[in-house]
Amino acid sequence: MSFAKLDELGRKLEALEHALAILGADEATHMAVGGGEKRAEAMAALAGMHHARATAPEIADWIEAAENEALDEEQQVALREFRRHYTNLTCLPVEFVERQTTTRLRCEQLWRDLRAKNDWSGFLPALEGVVALVREEAAMRAEVLHLDPYDALMEQFDPGHRAADITPVFAELKAFLRGFVPQALAVQEERLAKTPLRPLSGTYPVERQRELGLAMMAAVGFDLTRGSLSVSHHPFCGGVPTDVRITTRYRTTEFLSALMGVLHETGHAMYEQNLPQKWAHWPLGKARGMAMHESQSLFVEKQLGRNPAFWDWALPLVEQHLGEKWSKADILPHVHHVARGLIRVDADEVTYPLHVILRYELEQELVAGRLSVSDLPEAWDAKMRDTLGLSTIDTPQDGPMQDVHWPSGAFGYFPSYTLGAMMAAQQWAAIIRLNPGIDGDIAKGRFDMVTDWRHDNIWSLASSRSTPEIMKLATGETLNARYFTGHLTQRYGA
Amino acid sequence: MSFAKLDELGRKLEALEHALAILGADEATHMAVGGGEKRAEAMAALAGMHHARATAPEIADWIEAAENEALDEEQQVALREFRRHYTNLTCLPVEFVERQTTTRLRCEQLWRDLRAKNDWSGFLPALEGVVALVREEAAMRAEVLHLDPYDALMEQFDPGHRAADITPVFAELKAFLRGFVPQALAVQEERLAKTPLRPLSGTYPVERQRELGLAMMAAVGFDLTRGSLSVSHHPFCGGVPTDVRITTRYRTTEFLSALMGVLHETGHAMYEQNLPQKWAHWPLGKARGMAMHESQSLFVEKQLGRNPAFWDWALPLVEQHLGEKWSKADILPHVHHVARGLIRVDADEVTYPLHVILRYELEQELVAGRLSVSDLPEAWDAKMRDTLGLSTIDTPQDGPMQDVHWPSGAFGYFPSYTLGAMMAAQQWAAIIRLNPGIDGDIAKGRFDMVTDWRHDNIWSLASSRSTPEIMKLATGETLNARYFTGHLTQRYGA
Repeated sequence: MSFAKLDELGRKLEALEHALAILGADEATHMAVGGGEKRAEAMAALAGMHHARATAPEIADWIEAAENEALDEEQQVALREFRRHYTNLTCLPVEFVERQTTTRLRCEQLWRDLRAKNDWSGFLPALEGVVALVREEAAMRAEVLHLDPYDALMEQFDPGHRAADITPVFAELKAFLRGFVPQALAVQEERLAKTPLRPLSGTYPVERQRELGLAMMAAVGFDLTRGSLSVSHHPFCGGVPTDVRITTRYRTTEFLSALMGVLHETGHAMYEQNLPQKWAHWPLGKARGMAMHESQSLFVEKQLGRNPAFWDWALPLVEQHLGEKWSKADILPHVHHVARGLIRVDADEVTYPLHVILRYELEQELVAGRLSVSDLPEAWDAKMRDTLGLSTIDTPQDGPMQDVHWPSGAFGYFPSYTLGAMMAAQQWAAIIRLNPGIDGDIAKGRFDMVTDWRHDNIWSLASSRSTPEIMKLATGETLNARYFTGHLTQRYGA
Repeated sequence: MSFAKLDELGRKLEALEHALAILGADEATHMAVGGGEKRAEAMAALAGMHHARATAPEIADWIEAAENEALDEEQQVALREFRRHYTNLTCLPVEFVERQTTTRLRCEQLWRDLRAKNDWSGFLPALEGVVALVREEAAMRAEVLHLDPYDALMEQFDPGHRAADITPVFAELKAFLRGFVPQALAVQEERLAKTPLRPLSGTYPVERQRELGLAMMAAVGFDLTRGSLSVSHHPFCGGVPTDVRITTRYRTTEFLSALMGVLHETGHAMYEQNLPQKWAHWPLGKARGMAMHESQSLFVEKQLGRNPAFWDWALPLVEQHLGEKWSKADILPHVHHVARGLIRVDADEVTYPLHVILRYELEQELVAGRLSVSDLPEAWDAKMRDTLGLSTIDTPQDGPMQDVHWPSGAFGYFPSYTLGAMMAAQQWAAIIRLNPGIDGDIAKGRFDMVTDWRHDNIWSLASSRSTPEIMKLATGETLNARYFTGHLTQRYGA
């Protein structure tokens, strides 16, 4: 039976993915510094074995044959995802993929060096090479997937999202934020004029912060028997669903950023931990995509962790672990601090979407060939001045050289961040409709109703439906900006 | 070119071995408890991929063809080890290996349960099944390798060691120990009567013990940029040569056993860290065998760590880290404590070989079919009474059910422990001949001369020669019991 062959293949691929995931997490947390070269060799070889197995020509025959087999409904959905996966993996010629891998790697290495030196002109030819190949890739994928070129790229990260749907939503959001950012800043200034900020600084030993983080993870719903918290240079969520590795980094003079990072990664981790185990070795069993994943992390960080009600419950826990008493009036100005800035990863939830929409607009132009790479600094600067009133014309390192995404060839990824933020707000609104008193639960550290809803409406579906379909089923409608703008207005408005 | 194909195969196998080694170490140190089942599945699948690749029929043709290629001397030696490896891996029919794997696994699981219950008769049929298959295995390997059956089993662990060479050496050692153990115990008793033992107990926080262990590892020659120290239930040395993972376990009331464990694993680790890197992906580049490996760990633990001169240097370090002042007169009675006991892993260096020789004698009889499994308890008890004056007739859990080796089918492994102890003493004697004042170096914490000798004479040879050949080249002669008996006499005699 051909479906059985796909099932068996899935188990082999899962084993290799397991190894790659744990080796990757281990590299960032426990590997000896001298082990890097051999680790890279081993992971490259394992990734090669995975690719060779996942793209073997006979798989096409198995998929074809399985479509004529008597499959139950679950198997039929699994087969659809096997096909989607296989098509996306095999639609580019091997020769092209190799050329692209080399070009991207070289550009990414150059980026690490030249970004620090603010050297745009040295970097330009390498990025031009990457963009040229991205245009080729988009055209090839578009043909196979019967999609527009940019949609075909987004499809790799977020099955089902189309620029035609997203663009008007982003336009509405951008128009809103253009007026709202100055308003939120004015509200903040007025409040700070009345009540000066109590600085967050203190002395918070790493071990105590870690215990606090673990206590919050457990309370929010992270299963500590199937995951762990470590330290790494850049926080991440890795590992496998039965052993999710999340990390953070600590400063002993300040606790809030590590803690918010832990909550964010906890959101990613809970999605992974709660995917249906019986589907774990099928593409169907994977998380749906990057926007949905980001909605889960942002949900825990923003909808829960930055919710004032959360701090009714959290502050005694902070005091218990760190020995310092904070009032909500002390902490919330930090939790809700808004600032115009150049750097996306440092941005707050109000200004963050403007960074993303800028990139979304520019990368569509780049992929379509309507914008040349050499014109990026001016185009970036114009949009930054327009939306945030800041210029990057003399600092391309904070402009088009800011992120690793483009040098590494990840075009079509950026929208996921803001789609995730909007989806999280829309999910939260759906929960409030069902349980208007949910803030009372949160203030008591009771997260089960929230967890149950997310389990039933998001996690348990895995990849059985597209992102827009999951949103429609879960919240009654597809993406709608008003939940997110409503959320911002309530939290940051006058 | 066929040699190039073997070389390329070696890189693929190395990547899978890398994954298995790190996943194995991770499982015992950092894995979430709930991750075990999926980890086992992943490792079994990866091991299966490794076996399938390493035993592919075309490899026989490559080896055959490579023998007619123009190879340099290094490649010729590498090819010999490729062949040895391939022959040992493929000389049993797949059907037999599968039957054996199932039988061993079931016996080992039963052993974990029934040893605790001291239930020999429940365990007997399972062990009989394992022994029956071991006899078959030995016969098949013997035919292919042109060796005696027991030698063919030992060859898996220790290439080049033959029972005909080992038996007289063990007989000499046994005869010596029969007289020496009572003598050493009398000496100890007399000394303790004069100077009562200062108990080792105190309060030693784990973090301080860990720092002390790391300081000693580094001083002895462990490369901390290519390895690390963690905690696990059973101490081990795992990982890969560029990232060796050693572990220990701590008791906060006592520091010596964890420290000696760290030194022992450091010995294993230094062998791995110093294997020639350019051969890392060939069988030639692997450590020579279990006896040689054990000689390296015991060398660091016994020849260095239990050497009185070592404590001249070590005691100030202990004081610095643990804040407690010990004199050599205080510590050496603990470091050199001798006791008759039933349990091999708890034995000191004087009595340990008697445990091993007992098993060596019995397993030869078992493999040859001259002893039936049902007669083991009596045979074990007779030998224990004969050599150590202790009986196990009522406690088979401390007799033939004591170790995991037999239930798991590892016949021919036990001699490695005592061969290693003898080889370490013989290596140490060779070093003393070159540098009679070496204890003066050790007392100052200078280990470079010792390290250089071990590097040049043991580690850099990897698997380029057999164990007896390496010993002959390094020390001027093959295995000779008198270095070990001389070592014991000097340390524990009157």
